[in-house]
Amino acid sequence: MVVFFGKVLKINLTDRTSRTEELDQETLRKFVGGSALGAKILYDEVPAGADPLGPDNKLIYTVGPITGTNAPCASRLNITTKSPLTGAIGNSLSGGHFPVEMKKTGYDAIVIEGKADEPVYVLIKEDKVDIRNAKKYWGLNTQDTQNYIKEDLNDLSLRISCIGPAGENISLMACIMNEARAAGRKGVGAVMGSKNLKAIVVRGDKEVPVVDPDRFQAAIREVLKNLKESDLVYPVFTHTGTVLAVDGTSALGVMPVNNFRDTGVVDYSKTLGTKAYAQYDQTKNPCYRCPMSCTQVRMARGGRYAGISTEGPEFETIYSMGSVLGVDDPELVIAADRLCDELGIDTMSSGVAIAMAMELYEEGILTETDGLELSFGNGDIVLPLLKMMAYREGFAEIFADGTRRAAERLGEKAKYYAMEVKGLELPAYDVRGLKAHGLNYATSFTGADHNRGYAFQEVFGIPVPHAVERLDIKGKGELTKFNQDFAGLYDILTMCEFPVQTALPHVAQKIGAELLSASTGLEFTEEDAWQLGERLNNICRMFNIREGFSRKDDTLPRRLMEEPIKEGLSQGERISQEDLDYMLDEYYKARGWDEEGIPTPEKLRELGIEDTIDAIPVTV
Amino acid sequence: MVVFFGKVLKINLTDRTSRTEELDQETLRKFVGGSALGAKILYDEVPAGADPLGPDNKLIYTVGPITGTNAPCASRLNITTKSPLTGAIGNSLSGGHFPVEMKKTGYDAIVIEGKADEPVYVLIKEDKVDIRNAKKYWGLNTQDTQNYIKEDLNDLSLRISCIGPAGENISLMACIMNEARAAGRKGVGAVMGSKNLKAIVVRGDKEVPVVDPDRFQAAIREVLKNLKESDLVYPVFTHTGTVLAVDGTSALGVMPVNNFRDTGVVDYSKTLGTKAYAQYDQTKNPCYRCPMSCTQVRMARGGRYAGISTEGPEFETIYSMGSVLGVDDPELVIAADRLCDELGIDTMSSGVAIAMAMELYEEGILTETDGLELSFGNGDIVLPLLKMMAYREGFAEIFADGTRRAAERLGEKAKYYAMEVKGLELPAYDVRGLKAHGLNYATSFTGADHNRGYAFQEVFGIPVPHAVERLDIKGKGELTKFNQDFAGLYDILTMCEFPVQTALPHVAQKIGAELLSASTGLEFTEEDAWQLGERLNNICRMFNIREGFSRKDDTLPRRLMEEPIKEGLSQGERISQEDLDYMLDEYYKARGWDEEGIPTPEKLRELGIEDTIDAIPVTV
Repeated sequence: MVVFFGKVLKINLTDRTSRTEELDQETLRKFVGGSALGAKILYDEVPAGADPLGPDNKLIYTVGPITGTNAPCASRLNITTKSPLTGAIGNSLSGGHFPVEMKKTGYDAIVIEGKADEPVYVLIKEDKVDIRNAKKYWGLNTQDTQNYIKEDLNDLSLRISCIGPAGENISLMACIMNEARAAGRKGVGAVMGSKNLKAIVVRGDKEVPVVDPDRFQAAIREVLKNLKESDLVYPVFTHTGTVLAVDGTSALGVMPVNNFRDTGVVDYSKTLGTKAYAQYDQTKNPCYRCPMSCTQVRMARGGRYAGISTEGPEFETIYSMGSVLGVDDPELVIAADRLCDELGIDTMSSGVAIAMAMELYEEGILTETDGLELSFGNGDIVLPLLKMMAYREGFAEIFADGTRRAAERLGEKAKYYAMEVKGLELPAYDVRGLKAHGLNYATSFTGADHNRGYAFQEVFGIPVPHAVERLDIKGKGELTKFNQDFAGLYDILTMCEFPVQTALPHVAQKIGAELLSASTGLEFTEEDAWQLGERLNNICRMFNIREGFSRKDDTLPRRLMEEPIKEGLSQGERISQEDLDYMLDEYYKARGWDEEGIPTPEKLRELGIEDTIDAIPVTV
Repeated sequence: MVVFFGKVLKINLTDRTSRTEELDQETLRKFVGGSALGAKILYDEVPAGADPLGPDNKLIYTVGPITGTNAPCASRLNITTKSPLTGAIGNSLSGGHFPVEMKKTGYDAIVIEGKADEPVYVLIKEDKVDIRNAKKYWGLNTQDTQNYIKEDLNDLSLRISCIGPAGENISLMACIMNEARAAGRKGVGAVMGSKNLKAIVVRGDKEVPVVDPDRFQAAIREVLKNLKESDLVYPVFTHTGTVLAVDGTSALGVMPVNNFRDTGVVDYSKTLGTKAYAQYDQTKNPCYRCPMSCTQVRMARGGRYAGISTEGPEFETIYSMGSVLGVDDPELVIAADRLCDELGIDTMSSGVAIAMAMELYEEGILTETDGLELSFGNGDIVLPLLKMMAYREGFAEIFADGTRRAAERLGEKAKYYAMEVKGLELPAYDVRGLKAHGLNYATSFTGADHNRGYAFQEVFGIPVPHAVERLDIKGKGELTKFNQDFAGLYDILTMCEFPVQTALPHVAQKIGAELLSASTGLEFTEEDAWQLGERLNNICRMFNIREGFSRKDDTLPRRLMEEPIKEGLSQGERISQEDLDYMLDEYYKARGWDEEGIPTPEKLRELGIEDTIDAIPVTV
């Protein structure tokens, strides 16, 4: 049997060597690619207790068997590492064109090990791996870095993944950029910076074959048919992109306002919603082979931000640079999104960090602000403060490593205002009015993550596997398992969740199994496919357990558990400790974990990851 | 005989057609390429009195027979148009990679005619010319424009020449950018904007052959040998770029300060000179096949401009965003240079316009400044004011079309502070201490232009054709003719003046003749080659004469004629009307022009441009 995938490139920056490994068939079958392959390598190769910013941590780029084929929406990169922001396993996703170019170099995984003694970048081209001096690019923003490397190498068609000043300065909110696409979260950029690695540069020259082209094309036709039949994909998302969610969450009263203090009090759908942003649409910049093409390029048209354009801003950034700061200026959000991309800092974590700083300032807990007036609604301070955090300048140093670290420095009272789970700042959904979102944020192995089990049922009303009531806590355990495993399967396929969640959920297992079987030549049943996502969630859980995580870490910010939402359609809602415990019990049970949230040996054996059993803590 | 060059592409934006023309051999022999070919087409095709911003004006891109060969330093683009800033013939130069890519499309000239009824861009690729809708790029800055067009066309190797917001808003200081290279001066970007043309996009697929490769390589070897032997090229320019001139002009006391009011009073060599800028060197980005590689990429390293990088800043920008504003902040100059490139506005004209605004403010002539404190030395206002000029916002509208227009609006007293010749703002050299520079600025057919006859003898002490004394007015007529014709020859060759002036002047004619003969198969003697530059200067003079220009326009700003330089090595110097008249008389005589500066019919016949004789005004 021909297996066309499974080649791993390992690059050691300490001794500046590289080597290639072929994965065995069992590993491929169990982990395939994407987030699962990354998790498997990380679990096996990074020892418990490793310093996330030390040479023992690894930075693992993975794609999968269908990346770079003609399958639509399959250009997603997964970057896995032990997150310096959370201490848990971290994976971060990005679209664009880099993933396909990486796949075409012939590797499904690139593992960066060790630490260079001076700034370097890695060039992978024509089966050669070159570790080169990057002093000349150190300090440049992410866009300039990409442009100059291309010119210097006289090859404009290179695709580049790189860090900006935030990653170089080891801000734990630093992201990794390729073009204007961010692998944004969990501080992956800080890990890259800690290794003195400025960029990974790839140029592919390989074809990506599939084993059974006819079967593969049939599966693709079914994907396209479902995309076409969707009421949301082409009629709406193509034109609005993710900003649509501003309208939806505002209507439900769950768009967070003023660091979650005033959710429901202000309706941002008019100032920051689809209608407001339509006037800024400039062009599009779709990911490789994406027929949906949700990425709007928007440009501020007048005043102080005139001419500043950005890819997006996506919904999450409209929240983090808008509503959660009490800012209703869509052009400022555009400018902030662009600046974050250039600095290489996560828009979400950095925005929520600013929100925290604003509330601490209003509460009198933060007093030294280098003259900046940090009140909610003051958009003027956003761009300067982003820059200061990326460069660790002045008082902003306190917030450069996210809200949890800031709270640790500012004392017990400050903790209440840190809107994070496991150290990862909350995404846009105020989970007090979206209970499955809440359970997902509490239990996701990466912290409060909208990419690891997004409850599309609660927001878009899609009744798969069944209709749900967003304010109900019952049944959310099963649902969250479904959503997390679903996200896992499609991450492994490197397919974009966005069209998959809205157009394909009813046929997701079937299509997933077909795409995998036809591309790899390894036969996957629907159940096999589904188990891939479950296995991912279990091995990652075991990684965290080995690091000391347990039920106590499956929690939510205290504010969301104590303070009810003030106004709007979700008024009065909160997720009490009792509610959360109820949902956790349901969830653990659905997962086959014990009541402390520890996977049982039986479950691990069932999933074929019995080698993780010895990470189960010994009960006293 | 095979002639490998001379194909002209004409694109009419009004009726959206294009056609190809072959130049006849006589035209090729007389005008060859570059600035001369552009001038010939403009002279023949744009009628006297045409509105520079109307559909009758043309925008002419030219390269030449050796562009795109393996000749070094031969990637210069010439853009010729009737300048809206001066009303004279305007040509503007740019390096980089676009010129070679254009040549490889198979065309030596691209002539843009008419005016599109909505924003368009032109794509020239594989012998096809496509006029496409550019609404989606309208408003984007020049860097984003280039990036998005490449992504949208899924061809990253395209080379793009485009305008930014300044060109769209028809600022008469607007430039045309390709990558970060500016065809900066004379408002060529406003002409492009007036035609609703956002960009010209090229992808070449042709080889550029030469007729006699052996002879061509011999000439190239001689170029390289001379470059190697130069004390300046590799030992200095390669490392410093043009910033070297800050040190030189400061030492001579001719670096203009505070709108030329205080030249010599402040020495900027320490704050803005080679030593100051060395710490900002980041990488390089040479033009195509340039062994010298003078382009330094510099980056601000801390504080408010941290992480902002730019190609340059070149000497002229260090003057226009530095000394002439009384600003000694090298990082601000970096940031301003970058912003100008993105806005698509000429750093030189816009800086000198700010200098004028500052002096008018200090003199109480300009009072309404939207709250900006315009005093000399206040760098804080530079970036906001650049943006306001590009967008024609607030009081800055007055300065958006350069200093001459500003003076016309602000009244007679303001005129004294407009540092321009024929409407073109002065370059960096305070000509009161560099007399040949003064004569060149007074007589250049484009206005105060450092690219049309730079007196390298006065600044670098190069004794070709003979040693000169910078403060002497005698002999400057002959010298200026030499320099202008010399610049003309090398513009026609599309070779960079910078290495040519410093390393090749003693063999310039010989090498020029050899490169032309070997590449074209048309035999050029040294005298023929030399005459190319002279012919250029004469046909351009005739273009201007046809537009009503005469001796009265060969002048200098009144300040330079009345006020002596205050301090330093050039203290007490000025160029009085008497001095200027003396030099003009010498110059006209050397040129074979009459005392009104009108070329004689004999001279025009000698140069084979007797068809311009009817533009000679009838003497009453």
